[in-house]
Amino acid sequence: MAIRGEVAHLGHFELLTPKPSESLWFFEQVMGMEREAEEGGSVYLRGFGDYERYCLKLTESETSGMGHLALRASSQEALDRRVEALERSGAGIGWIDGDVGHGPAYRFSDPDGRTFEIYWESERYSPPAQLRPAMLNQQQKRTGRGVGVRRLEHLNFVSPEVRSCRRFLEDELGYRSLEIIELDDGREYGAWLTATVQGHEIIYILEHQPVRGRLHHAAFWVDTREEVLRAADLFQDAGIFIEAGPAKHTPIHSFYLYVYEPGGNRIEVTSGGYLVFDPAPDATTIWHEAEYKSSRAWGRAFPPSFDTYATPPYEEPAAGA
Amino acid sequence: MAIRGEVAHLGHFELLTPKPSESLWFFEQVMGMEREAEEGGSVYLRGFGDYERYCLKLTESETSGMGHLALRASSQEALDRRVEALERSGAGIGWIDGDVGHGPAYRFSDPDGRTFEIYWESERYSPPAQLRPAMLNQQQKRTGRGVGVRRLEHLNFVSPEVRSCRRFLEDELGYRSLEIIELDDGREYGAWLTATVQGHEIIYILEHQPVRGRLHHAAFWVDTREEVLRAADLFQDAGIFIEAGPAKHTPIHSFYLYVYEPGGNRIEVTSGGYLVFDPAPDATTIWHEAEYKSSRAWGRAFPPSFDTYATPPYEEPAAGA
Amino acid sequence: MAIRGEVAHLGHFELLTPKPSESLWFFEQVMGMEREAEEGGSVYLRGFGDYERYCLKLTESETSGMGHLALRASSQEALDRRVEALERSGAGIGWIDGDVGHGPAYRFSDPDGRTFEIYWESERYSPPAQLRPAMLNQQQKRTGRGVGVRRLEHLNFVSPEVRSCRRFLEDELGYRSLEIIELDDGREYGAWLTATVQGHEIIYILEHQPVRGRLHHAAFWVDTREEVLRAADLFQDAGIFIEAGPAKHTPIHSFYLYVYEPGGNRIEVTSGGYLVFDPAPDATTIWHEAEYKSSRAWGRAFPPSFDTYATPPYEEPAAGA
Amino acid sequence: MAIRGEVAHLGHFELLTPKPSESLWFFEQVMGMEREAEEGGSVYLRGFGDYERYCLKLTESETSGMGHLALRASSQEALDRRVEALERSGAGIGWIDGDVGHGPAYRFSDPDGRTFEIYWESERYSPPAQLRPAMLNQQQKRTGRGVGVRRLEHLNFVSPEVRSCRRFLEDELGYRSLEIIELDDGREYGAWLTATVQGHEIIYILEHQPVRGRLHHAAFWVDTREEVLRAADLFQDAGIFIEAGPAKHTPIHSFYLYVYEPGGNRIEVTSGGYLVFDPAPDATTIWHEAEYKSSRAWGRAFPPSFDTYATPPYEEPAAGA
Repeated sequence: MAIRGEVAHLGHFELLTPKPSESLWFFEQVMGMEREAEEGGSVYLRGFGDYERYCLKLTESETSGMGHLALRASSQEALDRRVEALERSGAGIGWIDGDVGHGPAYRFSDPDGRTFEIYWESERYSPPAQLRPAMLNQQQKRTGRGVGVRRLEHLNFVSPEVRSCRRFLEDELGYRSLEIIELDDGREYGAWLTATVQGHEIIYILEHQPVRGRLHHAAFWVDTREEVLRAADLFQDAGIFIEAGPAKHTPIHSFYLYVYEPGGNRIEVTSGGYLVFDPAPDATTIWHEAEYKSSRAWGRAFPPSFDTYATPPYEEPAAGA
Repeated sequence: MAIRGEVAHLGHFELLTPKPSESLWFFEQVMGMEREAEEGGSVYLRGFGDYERYCLKLTESETSGMGHLALRASSQEALDRRVEALERSGAGIGWIDGDVGHGPAYRFSDPDGRTFEIYWESERYSPPAQLRPAMLNQQQKRTGRGVGVRRLEHLNFVSPEVRSCRRFLEDELGYRSLEIIELDDGREYGAWLTATVQGHEIIYILEHQPVRGRLHHAAFWVDTREEVLRAADLFQDAGIFIEAGPAKHTPIHSFYLYVYEPGGNRIEVTSGGYLVFDPAPDATTIWHEAEYKSSRAWGRAFPPSFDTYATPPYEEPAAGA
Repeated sequence: MAIRGEVAHLGHFELLTPKPSESLWFFEQVMGMEREAEEGGSVYLRGFGDYERYCLKLTESETSGMGHLALRASSQEALDRRVEALERSGAGIGWIDGDVGHGPAYRFSDPDGRTFEIYWESERYSPPAQLRPAMLNQQQKRTGRGVGVRRLEHLNFVSPEVRSCRRFLEDELGYRSLEIIELDDGREYGAWLTATVQGHEIIYILEHQPVRGRLHHAAFWVDTREEVLRAADLFQDAGIFIEAGPAKHTPIHSFYLYVYEPGGNRIEVTSGGYLVFDPAPDATTIWHEAEYKSSRAWGRAFPPSFDTYATPPYEEPAAGA
Repeated sequence: MAIRGEVAHLGHFELLTPKPSESLWFFEQVMGMEREAEEGGSVYLRGFGDYERYCLKLTESETSGMGHLALRASSQEALDRRVEALERSGAGIGWIDGDVGHGPAYRFSDPDGRTFEIYWESERYSPPAQLRPAMLNQQQKRTGRGVGVRRLEHLNFVSPEVRSCRRFLEDELGYRSLEIIELDDGREYGAWLTATVQGHEIIYILEHQPVRGRLHHAAFWVDTREEVLRAADLFQDAGIFIEAGPAKHTPIHSFYLYVYEPGGNRIEVTSGGYLVFDPAPDATTIWHEAEYKSSRAWGRAFPPSFDTYATPPYEEPAAGA
């Protein structure tokens, strides 16, 4: 019943890369994350503000895209209730024993077939000597290396059926939709969902290719817009392709910067935006297509690749296939 | 049980001022708030991001301090459950019909005797033509006047019994304590509480005078630390006394700037800090006195007035009284 | 010889507008400038940091564009030497008695026929009571109204002969060229000139229409990039068209935001960039076309209007004319 | 005669340290500078924006303080004229052959006996492959390591005779005094001098100990106030003592942060402030003691150590000595 609050927050996600050493260089040296563990072909990386051990599991793979997304429940009881609901819904897959840093996790699928997990038991991060911070309420020292991201902020997925995916998160996991863009043809172009008051944690936007389950981007948080601007300078000097930004998003008003990491996945560095405190069920901002197009933040549109590129990349079937 | 989430957020507070026109000038012209209503000797003022009609009720009075603090429940059912609990606890006072912009509210007292209210029914703000914004997901146009605060961020109270007040908010209203400072003598020096994931909404710190119920400060949010720095320039040119800051707080790491508004109340302009996502009951950071004193953010201490001044001002009883 | 240093800085410029009251609203209410004087159909406006009385003379006219640009010499002797050189060069027009706030000025033309003036005698600004600042080294109180520009930063002109214009400023006025973009066809696409160490004061870029003497934009300075971002929000809510930015310029690395004021002139709000201290004659950065195109700051290009729109607007002659 | 402009800018300074490896760690790892050369017990370090090879020569020594300050002349002729004047003035010492990165330099003393040098011939920096930047008008790639200072901004000396030192720089080297603080007893408390339009390059403030020739601090520039705030976080986590700031200076309004590097020298990270364009001889802001004390920026005073600590440290002679 009182579903809201049963998912506490995004735990971590697994990113697949066909270029593991270059991707590792990107996240460690350019993004400034720390290697917390390595196991079975995966490297586990953390932002300086993660209270858990990591937020990114980087895994070598034949292609790019997301492996899975793991959500932390707000208690053991909340986990049990969500699992029961997920099993009832038909989306359930089953339990796994856990992974580095967390206990048993229940696997399920979103309507597009992406793998999600939900868990409760979690290890609190304990820094090694060289990362010990000055203050008790810091998880880790700031090293001053690279962009210096604090934490994972949101995941953005592309889906042919934004509405179904959105309703699945609302109905089975208690997410709130803060903003929805509706197209004139009745489909939803995008939905911005959160389990807390922060502007967004999971986003679905429309897939334009005949595929399912792709990742649009993963966004990491820095504390200020100035750090997003600084990141743009660092990316350019590091030879990282900048696709769009720094600029202001129309939904949530967050400040964005999109790049492609060496494995091909689109990564966002983000800050700002607003918190949404209104608890009312009708608090969602619903944009109609024309409203959205005519009042974009700072009048800025995205480059065409923003609507077509996602990972793994889509390849047109060969003629005659 | 499942108290968490039943209080949605701070609604508004009533600030008492012996200099109503000067205080109004401060909040409207210097802080950049909008007059949304005037009724019965009070002026209702809003930040540009308030989805409700206002966050500040400014009321003429013989002295300074806080009139009441109003909290919004997250639903009618949540309100009913909180009222039932408050009545049981003995803290309840009773219902009032409502006020500008909100419906019936239940009054109760914190352990120091401050007046709190909790309500559910609320009018969503609808801007007049001259304040209509460019985008659908903005509540109001940014006027560019003065500091330009977005919303009320937190209230800080001084109390001779921080621990009792903290436990009252936890037990009866579902607040989480994110940080607590414990003195060597066993008392608590301060407690930082929230009903969401944002760093703080209500703070209690130790009262050093033989009085109860005083206000340490009310804090308004701006989106960036740069706007806090800009505010310091505006305050100095406007002749407003700056007591401390801009600088970084040790708890929550938010960026602060403290001034006294013409009515004598301490007002903070704040930004930054971190969100606390860890849902675990033991996620509170507990500082022991020595730890806190030896690792303050940027090594900075407050001026002595920070520990003694609150509103209404304390006046020593005349000798022989 | 020893020309360098004889022009001290940009004094002010005259902007022509066919919509004087709307343009005045823009500069006063949105840009946050102060009306310092009104005389003969012109309003004289100042930024909060101008030590002279004003930097903008806004004049009603049939069309848009620049009336004149006035430069302050660094001494009476420097003025005399420049006038002598200008007379010799054939660019001289003659003396005028002065204008609000400054003494005798010598008029001359740049190679495109724009009117420039150079003067030495200047009144230092003295603020009225309501604009008196808190500190001795401030020219004026910060009012907190609108964007809040400090001063005029640079003027950008479009010219069919960038090289001639650049050499004129170098040879007759002692400007340094900090950056030059050279096209493959041998023409110069742009030249960034300064009389001091600040990144640019006068810019010429290529005119694509068969006209001479147009204004590309006038740029006003704010102290931080965050204020440029804040300006973008204010412009959008005020209904001002944003053409490009906020983003980073390739030459000088300054942070830009371009809008059209109601009279049609392009106005930039700018901050950041670097100072150029190298005094050597060969310190100019010379970009070849391909280098410039392949390494733009943050990979960002301008919208097409940036290369075609200037004021006064160019109108194609009617067919058969 | 036309002295102004003959000194182009600060070239570099030599900092003495009794803890060379710890000081090197500070400048390289925490401040983010690059090692450009090592020779004869000195390490030569650069900011990312230096067009010359370095701005800091770090030299092992028995105690702390400054070795010498080197100024770049604006041409060979300017150098010759300054040397002639310095010889006439009695402050001259004589020529040295040069040092890493620059040609012959003329040594002289300021009135306190500090060693200054002035030179013209200078090597332009050429980055190695791993520091090659993305754009032609950058000197070097931004590595994203540590604070990331762009360049040396100013040197601040303590002197028992501020007025004599100031006049020496004005009369022999063409510096302008932008701000002067005069004490009630007729002495000058401080003088802020520049050779360009930037707010300050050399500062003298009053020495309170019976010694001459000490260094108050050396200041390095970052492009934004946000980077100064970021630096404060990095310093705290790196265990570097923060003496004062981040906050706003009263003269020049620059944003400051003072720390002690491991060798004991006070180092400032600075940004912001204003450029001074007024070329008039009477453009200096002269503060009388009371004016200065009553209108400090943001009402903030320095800690007592700011008036007493300088390098090398002063040690009271033993009693009876």
